[in-house]
Parts: sequence; structure tokens; C-alpha cells
Amino acid sequence: MGDLPKIVVTGASGRMGQMLMKTVSASDKCTLVGAIERSGHDWIGRDAGLCMGGGALGVMVSDDALEAFASADAVIDFTAPSATVEFAALAAQARIVHVIGTTGMDEAELAKLTAAGRHATIIRAGNMSLGVNLLTKLTRMVAAALDVDYDIEIIEAHHNRKVDAPSGTALMLGEAAAQGRGVKLADVRDSGRDGITSARQQGDIGFSAIRGGDIIGEHDVLFAGEGERIILRHVASDRSLFAKGAVRAAIWGQGRAPGEYDMLDVLGLAD
Amino acid sequence: MGDLPKIVVTGASGRMGQMLMKTVSASDKCTLVGAIERSGHDWIGRDAGLCMGGGALGVMVSDDALEAFASADAVIDFTAPSATVEFAALAAQARIVHVIGTTGMDEAELAKLTAAGRHATIIRAGNMSLGVNLLTKLTRMVAAALDVDYDIEIIEAHHNRKVDAPSGTALMLGEAAAQGRGVKLADVRDSGRDGITSARQQGDIGFSAIRGGDIIGEHDVLFAGEGERIILRHVASDRSLFAKGAVRAAIWGQGRAPGEYDMLDVLGLAD
Amino acid sequence: MGDLPKIVVTGASGRMGQMLMKTVSASDKCTLVGAIERSGHDWIGRDAGLCMGGGALGVMVSDDALEAFASADAVIDFTAPSATVEFAALAAQARIVHVIGTTGMDEAELAKLTAAGRHATIIRAGNMSLGVNLLTKLTRMVAAALDVDYDIEIIEAHHNRKVDAPSGTALMLGEAAAQGRGVKLADVRDSGRDGITSARQQGDIGFSAIRGGDIIGEHDVLFAGEGERIILRHVASDRSLFAKGAVRAAIWGQGRAPGEYDMLDVLGLAD
Amino acid sequence: MGDLPKIVVTGASGRMGQMLMKTVSASDKCTLVGAIERSGHDWIGRDAGLCMGGGALGVMVSDDALEAFASADAVIDFTAPSATVEFAALAAQARIVHVIGTTGMDEAELAKLTAAGRHATIIRAGNMSLGVNLLTKLTRMVAAALDVDYDIEIIEAHHNRKVDAPSGTALMLGEAAAQGRGVKLADVRDSGRDGITSARQQGDIGFSAIRGGDIIGEHDVLFAGEGERIILRHVASDRSLFAKGAVRAAIWGQGRAPGEYDMLDVLGLAD
Repeated sequence: MGDLPKIVVTGASGRMGQMLMKTVSASDKCTLVGAIERSGHDWIGRDAGLCMGGGALGVMVSDDALEAFASADAVIDFTAPSATVEFAALAAQARIVHVIGTTGMDEAELAKLTAAGRHATIIRAGNMSLGVNLLTKLTRMVAAALDVDYDIEIIEAHHNRKVDAPSGTALMLGEAAAQGRGVKLADVRDSGRDGITSARQQGDIGFSAIRGGDIIGEHDVLFAGEGERIILRHVASDRSLFAKGAVRAAIWGQGRAPGEYDMLDVLGLAD
Repeated sequence: MGDLPKIVVTGASGRMGQMLMKTVSASDKCTLVGAIERSGHDWIGRDAGLCMGGGALGVMVSDDALEAFASADAVIDFTAPSATVEFAALAAQARIVHVIGTTGMDEAELAKLTAAGRHATIIRAGNMSLGVNLLTKLTRMVAAALDVDYDIEIIEAHHNRKVDAPSGTALMLGEAAAQGRGVKLADVRDSGRDGITSARQQGDIGFSAIRGGDIIGEHDVLFAGEGERIILRHVASDRSLFAKGAVRAAIWGQGRAPGEYDMLDVLGLAD
Repeated sequence: MGDLPKIVVTGASGRMGQMLMKTVSASDKCTLVGAIERSGHDWIGRDAGLCMGGGALGVMVSDDALEAFASADAVIDFTAPSATVEFAALAAQARIVHVIGTTGMDEAELAKLTAAGRHATIIRAGNMSLGVNLLTKLTRMVAAALDVDYDIEIIEAHHNRKVDAPSGTALMLGEAAAQGRGVKLADVRDSGRDGITSARQQGDIGFSAIRGGDIIGEHDVLFAGEGERIILRHVASDRSLFAKGAVRAAIWGQGRAPGEYDMLDVLGLAD
Repeated sequence: MGDLPKIVVTGASGRMGQMLMKTVSASDKCTLVGAIERSGHDWIGRDAGLCMGGGALGVMVSDDALEAFASADAVIDFTAPSATVEFAALAAQARIVHVIGTTGMDEAELAKLTAAGRHATIIRAGNMSLGVNLLTKLTRMVAAALDVDYDIEIIEAHHNRKVDAPSGTALMLGEAAAQGRGVKLADVRDSGRDGITSARQQGDIGFSAIRGGDIIGEHDVLFAGEGERIILRHVASDRSLFAKGAVRAAIWGQGRAPGEYDMLDVLGLAD
């Protein structure tokens, strides 16, 4: 096991953190060497596996990210923007791969990631599944192939605990559609339709957000023309999908030159 | 043909008016005897069939509704609220059946219809298709059978020229769901989700409006629980569906006592 | 815990058996007291919880069903027809509730269950979810409300390990549709369309079976007419749904008179 | 109008023939100059427009294809295999474009088309819509990008008068998927699932055919993996879509070198 990439997980106690630790532990292509939580969290100093209610993993939860990163090959990080910016600086210092699933970063935060990317290998994506990234690519292609007579609508459905709309993935698909058409999403985005809306503006990209039950994540990209419709659809049926994608990214990043990458690079789907 | 119900169509030159006139003419269960347009319209005094670009129908377009109603058995009316209120008074005076597909009426206008309904047989519905009315009934039943752990969402899709959202039919389905739960739709309606919405409020009824291409009308009622979902779905594939429902209503109304009816009565689906 | 219904699970080592044992153990409305496997199975004599790779449950796996049933209030049984017939005789002898999720029984086997039902309370269903049973009821209603101009098709999708087509649940829905129309499913069933089929026979009920990936179970009942379609759809997103339904049935059966029941009885949806 | 491509339609009295004649007549990019029916048909010698129940088109229906082709630039042909083979020889003789929407040709018939293609410009496709041809291309791409862990299923729905299953378009999509995977469709085709099928064979491409009501044509290509699904979907909502595609092909073919082309060439989507 000494040769396998050594991985640290941040936000260890969260839902995604736990899923990541289980996925890394279960993989025979990498090994879990660290689990990070914020200072004062009651998991600190305890075995990560026991904290999750399973068998011991031999990895103690720690609040010292730099120490953990120093002896690792990669960190997988689905936390919050401010934490991720700090981790990026530490990962750059430790010269390890930083896989980022955190969403909602603003311009200033993204600029800091770019700075960190001069020394670290950063792989960042709004959605780490193979299918969604493939869909992104198809969306851009179809938007480029069809003219503006085909109205584009993006419809997504998620569980009832989700706090934002549209989803990050829906926006990622919208960006891809806008790119395909050679426009900026901000100029054509139409979300939250309600009331007297007047007829649809040609060229707009519409968004609808459905919320209910335990839906993991479903995304439709609709191209509606006269006489026909094309729909590109993705359905996630298992949350571990995203953790598996992140682990795949961490392994792919080993030995890559510093810089910013996304899942299209990892999946070999980049143009 | 003397015994067949004699039918007048209002708003004759409009898209729905033309569809209605064609449907009545083609039916062997009723006969077209009048076509009404507003004074000054250039179809006035001309044959309705020729105006539509087809063969002559022997029915002249007129702006004198009362005269037309006086020798008819029913009027089918998909116009605007103010016109419909006037037609209701005239239909009551002529003691004929008034089939109303007009939407968007306010409280005052509805009160006038109720007054007219003391003398006329009024059949009014937001959607005249058999399928949608059946769906309304199912929606109420399922909403009553499932508890509030099942989140209700109504998703509709229409062509890109539609000016309001959600559709009248979506709201009709939402009313049915609210009724099934014993709540008022106004208290639980959640439409136009966008931005930081926070987690879904239990008990809410959500609405999404998709717009694109030439979609005639599609409605989904989603009940999303933990571990399962039920979806009740209606797809309209031919606009003449609504005209056929209106004609069926006009025929059904013959000989009925004055009063206000809806399509559930016509279809024999009322409780 | 002495007052909670005491439950035995058969086929303990199978995928569904394990799910059932976990669900019973986790419930605060019943208690697991027995786990049955066939003689010679290597789980015999060992703690059921440890066999499943979790903590001890204090319940030893046994091959002596009669002994286990004698001190229980209910048995939950998702095994094979021949085993289920034997368990039914033993459950009748022990006068306990027998919840049966086993599918594929022939006439002779069903006759034996009926015989057992004179002394035992048998609850049997092709699918134990609330949603599917509700859908069954809706299907019968809609099939009765619409005439034969509406073509009925049942489409189901399951994971790639499923060995039969159409699914038992699809057939259950087909039976409900046939009942609603007052016909026998065997006379109108059209499954496995392929090649030159000739035009669809009016009145037929068609079946399509989709197989792929890890799809837990999705069923559509389509009513397709001229100009419109109604679709009643169920999506299962968590396999524990069926185990939870079975446990609910076992609890509901306590104190009921002997006889044969189904999930519509349990859910209070029977006519 | 002298410069517009002059078009002949075969099978003039059929549903598709009539749609084609209307579409050509209505277009301002081409002109209808001939309408062919078989000898003895009662439309022969009459004006094609009057035969269809509309205004006169000034084009007489004829049974002399060669004469009609001699003074035309293209023939659009949605008939039967044997007729199409004959038309191909005549079109080659007249050196005009032959647009073929006929399906169900066998190897011998296809060989005759290839022979004709040495002298004529032949454009042939199982489906002439932009959307379906785009979907074909996407299907091949996605099948190539995903490995065999993703099960491929093709599901199609058509009206209740369709006599064959799966549809020609479904088979076209299946061919594209097989091509993407580098296999032959005949080796992996799994259609007509029914009864005890045993578990799905990895690498198979499955087909399901839904029949009901007036569904014009819907096709889904499903890629189902562990944890996620991608669906590529096409919905036709107006039958004139196919006629419009055929007319576009006839115009595109003007001035092209003899040979066999398909709609990907016409649409500029060929690799």
C-alpha cells in the first residue's frame, strides 16, 4: 500500500466528508491518511471510522491541515468557500493535488484559487460524475449545432433539503449551452418564472427547480423547436457517484503539472 | 339537422374560435348557426368558412350576439373576462347553455357569472379535456391519501408564446391538491423558485413552468416521499382536444337545469 | 419490548432477507426474534447481525422454522414459491401472521396458501410499497373511467440482474387495468413486441420491460388516446421501501381474523 | 419560379405523399411539378390539390414517372422498397436527385440503390428530422465514450397503427450505438423481452416498443450505469417535420456529385 496515493479528506464529519472517507477506504487504488475537521469539533483526536459508527480506520481526525497535507499526495475538499481558499494555500505549500467540490465561490475566491494553482494541481468541478460532465460537453455541442429557433430550458430536481436554486450543476449546464451559442449566460438567463411573464424571449436559457422527497439529482437540458424536441437527461441514483468521481480525480492528478483542471480533463473529454 | 343542438361561437376570428367553428361544423351531433366578432372587425358580414380560408359554411359572422343567441341552443365562448361577463347576461336572457373556456376572471366577474347562472346553464372549466379533468380528480384523491411527508410539485410545459406562469391548468391541479389536503392553495403556493430559497417548507405545493417550441401542454403532479415518488402526468398532443371537450359540454348541457357546472359534471366524474 | 410484535425473517442471508432484518431491528414498533435459513447454510448457528458484517443482534440464524414461529407473532417471507408454501403451513400451525413478498406462485401453490389462510392471517402482495399499491388502485379507476379508445401500455424499468419480464408489479398493474375494463388480462396481454406486429389490437394491454444499471424499479401506466395521454408513474428510489412496507403489514396483521389480505387492506385503500 | 428546384412526389395519394406535396407547394425554395401514383389509381389525370380536398395546384397526378422525372430536378419518395428500386433506376436515367424515405429495404434492394447512385444523387435516411439525426450522432459519441458497464436501451413510442417494432429510427439509433462500441448490432440486439429472460447480458443493446393513441414518434437512448443514467431523447410533435427534412434534402442535393448521402451530410453533421 506504500505506493498508493495517500489522501486526506476535509470536512470529515459532514455527509459528503463521511461518504468520501468511506469511498477512499474502500478503494484499492488509494489510501486514507488524514481526516480534517475544524478546531473544537468533538471528532478531533478520535478514529475517523469509529466516529462514523463503523470499524476503526486507523486515521485520527485532526484540526492541523498543514501537518496532514505534508505527508499526503492529495486532499479532497467539499467544504465552504472560505475554508477551501485556505486549504488551497496549504495544498500549494505542500505541493499536493487539491480536488475541490466546494461550490458557490465568488470572483475574489476564484482568483485566490488561480494563484494557488501556480504551485498546486487543482481539480475543481461543480459536479464530479462522469455522466454530468459528458452531458455538459453534449450540451455545448447541441447548442452550437442548433440555431436560436430551438428554445433551451434546463430543468433540475433535488431533495427537499437543498437550499439554493437552480443547482450548481444546472448552472454549469447553462454555461455550456451559452458557450455553445457564443453568448454569456448572465445575459440570457431566465429563472424563477412566475406571474405575467409575457412571451418567451428568443435566445433565453430558462431554468426550473423542482424540490421534493429524497431525489438525489436529476437534470434535463431541453431544446424545443417547431415540430420536435431534443432532451439530454442525467439521473443520479447513488450519492457515492460524486465521491467516486473525486477519488478518480485525486488519482488522475498524481504527477500532473501545477495548474487548474476540471473533470473533463480527468475524464479525457476535454476538447 | 333540425333536431341537433344549434351552436354559436364567440371570438370567431381567434385561434380558438376558428378551431371551435371547425369542430362544431365537423360534428354530426350539433350544428353551427352563429359566429360572433366585435363590431368593426373585418370578418363581420362575411361567411365564417370563407374567412378561415376554407369552403363556405353558410354562417355569416355577426356582431349582434343577442340576435344570434336568440335562435341558438348554446354558445361556446373562449374570449376575455369582460366579454364573457356580457355574453353571460345575454345567454341568460336567451335561456341557452353558455360554455365558458375563458380564464383569468376576478371575484367580481365570477359573481356576475353566478348571477347569470340563476337563469342560464353555465359550464365553465380552466381546461376542457377529459384527461386533465380526470387528473384533477386523481390529484385530489392522492393528496388526501398521502400525508404531508410527500412533497407535492406541479410542473407544466407550454409553447414559447404563452404569457403567464404557472398555467391555469397547473393552478387548477394545485387547487385540487390543496383541497385534498384540506388547505388553501394561497397559503402553501411556492412558485418561481430562484436564488437562496432555503430548504423546502413541508406542506408547500411547488410550481415550475417550462416554456419552449410548440409544446401544446404537459402537466405533471409529483408526490415525492422518502424512497418513492408518484407522478400523475397529462400530455396534450392535439389542440382540437379542448374544442372537442367544449362541444361535448354544449351538448351535455341541453335540457339541464340552470346553474353552474364544470367538466367533472359533464364527464360524469363529479363526486 | 415484551409487548412489541415478535418477528421472524426467512431467507435471512439473501439481499431482501438482510434488508428485512435490518429494518425490523431498527424499528421501534417490533422486535426481531428469529432468522431462518435452509439446513446446511453456513450462517446457521451464528448471530444474524455478525453474519451481515455489523454488530451482534442477539438472534441466531436457525433452520428450524417451526420452533422459531412458535414463539413469534409474525414471519416475513420473501423467498421462493415452494419454500413459502411450506412456511404457510407452519405459520398456520403456529397461528401467526404470514407476510408474503414471494412472487411467481402457480395455481396449485396459491390454492395451498388459501388453505393455510383458514387458520393464519396471510398478507400477500407483489409489491409492498404504499405508492405502488395506490397506483394499482388509480389504474383500476382510470381504466374504468376511460373507454377502449384509450390504449393502455405498462412500461417498467429495472436493474440488469432481474431475470423475468414483465415485472410482477407490472403484471399487478396490468391486472388492475384489466379489472377496471372488466376483461381478463390473459385475453388482452401483449408483451414482447418485436418484428412485424401489425397494427395494435384495440383493447390490448401492452407491456415493455427496460433493463439497465442499478434501477431499483420504475413503472408507468400509459393511457394513450387521440389528442391526449395520461400517465400514472411510480419511481422507487430506495430498496428499503419494500422492507418497510412488509414490516408495516406484519404489525397491521396483529389481532386480525385469519384470511388472505393484501397491501390495499393494510394501507386502508381497499374499496 | 423558373430557377427554383422542380420537385416530383411519388406515392402522391398516401398520407406522407400528401404531406410532401403540401410542404413542397408551401415552400418558397422549390416548386411542385409532378405527382406520381400507380397505374389505375383514381387520382390519375386529376389535379393533385383538388384530390387532396384543397385548391388546385396545377399539377396533374400521373403514372408516368420517367416523363415526370425528365423535366424535374428531384424526386421525393416515401413508398415501398420495390417501387423505390424502380424509381432509383429512372432517377439515375434522368440524372436527378432522389430523396428516399422508404424503409425496410433488404440487401439486394440496397445493392440496386448503390448501383443507381453511380449516376444519381441519392439521399436516403430512416428519419429526415434534424433532431433525430443529431441524436444519432450523439448516440455514437456517448456509446464510444462510456464503457460496457453502461447498459444501452432504446425505447420508442408510436401511434397504434404502426405495424412494425422496433421502429426504423430505433434501429438507426441502435446501429449508431453499436458503431460507437465497435460491435455489430445483430450480435447484441435484444428486442421483445418477455418471460424468463435471465439477467441482462453485458454489452447487449435492448429495444422496447410502446404503441398507443396518436403518438407521432418518441425515442429514448438510455445509458444506465451504477449510480447514474444518461438519456438522449427525441420527441416529434408535428408530422410535417419529416416532409420539411425531405424538402431540405432535395434542395441540398442540387449540384452535388452522384453518390449515396444521408441526412448527416445534408445537415452538415457528418464527421
